[in-house]
Amino acid sequence: MENQQWRLTSRPEGLIGPEHFERGMEAVPDLTAGQVLVKNLYLSFDPTQRGWVNDTESYMPPVAIGDVMRASTVGQVVSSETPGFSVGDLVQGLGGWQEYFVSEAGIGLSKLPAGITPQQALGVFGTTGLTAYFGLLDLSNPKPGDTILVSGAAGATGQVVGQIAKIKGARVIGIAGGAEKCSWLVEEAGFDAAIDYKNESVAAGIQRLCPNRINIFFDNVGGDILEAALDHLAQNARVILCGGIAGYNAVTPVPGPKNIMNLVITRSRMEGFIVIDYLGRMAEFLTDMVPWYQSGKIIHLEDVQEGFDAIPATLQRLFSGQNQGKQLLRLADPV
Amino acid sequence: MENQQWRLTSRPEGLIGPEHFERGMEAVPDLTAGQVLVKNLYLSFDPTQRGWVNDTESYMPPVAIGDVMRASTVGQVVSSETPGFSVGDLVQGLGGWQEYFVSEAGIGLSKLPAGITPQQALGVFGTTGLTAYFGLLDLSNPKPGDTILVSGAAGATGQVVGQIAKIKGARVIGIAGGAEKCSWLVEEAGFDAAIDYKNESVAAGIQRLCPNRINIFFDNVGGDILEAALDHLAQNARVILCGGIAGYNAVTPVPGPKNIMNLVITRSRMEGFIVIDYLGRMAEFLTDMVPWYQSGKIIHLEDVQEGFDAIPATLQRLFSGQNQGKQLLRLADPV
Repeated sequence: MENQQWRLTSRPEGLIGPEHFERGMEAVPDLTAGQVLVKNLYLSFDPTQRGWVNDTESYMPPVAIGDVMRASTVGQVVSSETPGFSVGDLVQGLGGWQEYFVSEAGIGLSKLPAGITPQQALGVFGTTGLTAYFGLLDLSNPKPGDTILVSGAAGATGQVVGQIAKIKGARVIGIAGGAEKCSWLVEEAGFDAAIDYKNESVAAGIQRLCPNRINIFFDNVGGDILEAALDHLAQNARVILCGGIAGYNAVTPVPGPKNIMNLVITRSRMEGFIVIDYLGRMAEFLTDMVPWYQSGKIIHLEDVQEGFDAIPATLQRLFSGQNQGKQLLRLADPV
Repeated sequence: MENQQWRLTSRPEGLIGPEHFERGMEAVPDLTAGQVLVKNLYLSFDPTQRGWVNDTESYMPPVAIGDVMRASTVGQVVSSETPGFSVGDLVQGLGGWQEYFVSEAGIGLSKLPAGITPQQALGVFGTTGLTAYFGLLDLSNPKPGDTILVSGAAGATGQVVGQIAKIKGARVIGIAGGAEKCSWLVEEAGFDAAIDYKNESVAAGIQRLCPNRINIFFDNVGGDILEAALDHLAQNARVILCGGIAGYNAVTPVPGPKNIMNLVITRSRMEGFIVIDYLGRMAEFLTDMVPWYQSGKIIHLEDVQEGFDAIPATLQRLFSGQNQGKQLLRLADPV
């Protein structure tokens, strides 16, 4: 049995694309004691993957040149030499851009709870939802009447952040690119308003929609959008740094906000976090998120691309803003 | 009786200097019921005064063109129509750049505790010490073994921050300009080491002196120094933004740090504060600071200029780095 793969061939300077990967093929190995063989079904695409291919110190080691590209996946166990994992089990792990992967002793694998689909496990009930939940609620305390601004609002994390903030009673403004995403935020996801950064000045939009300024800013973008938000902070505001997609593909670093002193004048806090620190609190998260989702209080838009060939191009969709919601790719369905 | 004054005549673009002020003179008014007349003895010079003359929204309204320049002062009551204030009392308030000022009903005036000199009241036991104490201890929690970096370390606030951090058992590195200030920090103020930003790269100095990276950065400077510090944060670091003197006289805003995403990777927090929020906790502060100072655990270097004529030029000393410690100016001694 053969295992198709996408391997990293060079480190991108600037925008990442299919030219930085090549197809590989190797035989699926025979399992030895303790191993589990998993067939990948769905791949998750996340902006943080762009950082994983840089040769710089970060929260995880870089993907080495020649290695299979790292990615979160959901797959199905096809053979197992480890107690606790059986053929047919749906599991989640860092399976990478390949058809099959082997886990040693099930390390890094977690079984999907009954009734949860691969798409949900990689999205609303996975690290995407976990990022939104703890990023918002552990780093700030949204209260009724607060104004919360979310950038990358139609993205995987942003859409969940805004809906959780609505559950907490806040007024929620999203920033997204294009009329379609903005109308989805308001019509479907229940945001109070949206700023279309492709068609209006973000600063003007904030001024218009946040007359009492911003109590909490959840930032997935950085760059100019962060600077515009810092110009409109309320007293004791909280700026939650989740990511900075504006800079991920920059050849030279994007300029930093020139108005950091606004944190002093408004006595505000800007703080970063990494979702892996919260993996141990998955149960606490699901206790809230499962009923919210099942009752329709939280919806989750997914963008599912298809097929092994499309993998490298699908990553680019995150950086061009083509993705409508959580970016996934289907290789196969569970059997 | 006449009252000499320095009044703001224009808003500086760039460096503030004597050319932005002119002398004024008016008669000291006869007091009406409820008023207190105070003779200024010592003036405090603080970097934040540069912001007070900008026509921009901040934590206090701008000084209007034509008004006496705002400044913290210690003075002595020369006549009083308010119970609670008597001739001879030493008092502190926003007395401004003038020989006399009138307080309505004693609002904004506070009497100096017995045994405290005007210099101490404006420095180590005043808002300078209060800034250092609550900025460090309310926004972070320095522990034995932590590495704490302080910029503007030989300045009024920085010197106190470093000494409090030493009392808490931390390893303290200061950044200051020139060999004289750096050797004072190590020889006299007990810092573990100092980086002379005028004679070495701050990034290289941090790398050399902070092998375990920075747990707490107390920043009075901003700009390139903030960026260098953000490149060397430990996990869960705390960046305390007290001020940004590097940008106060800039005609165009100084570029922001290009590496804000380091706050995400290291799960760190950057937070601003304003000392006026802590004025109500003065007693709590003095309970620690008075014994620390009296036992010699904290020393405080003061730079006392002389005379009414020198007032505008003395403010410039803060921005040229000429001041050696807390910048004060003596108009007269208590009688």
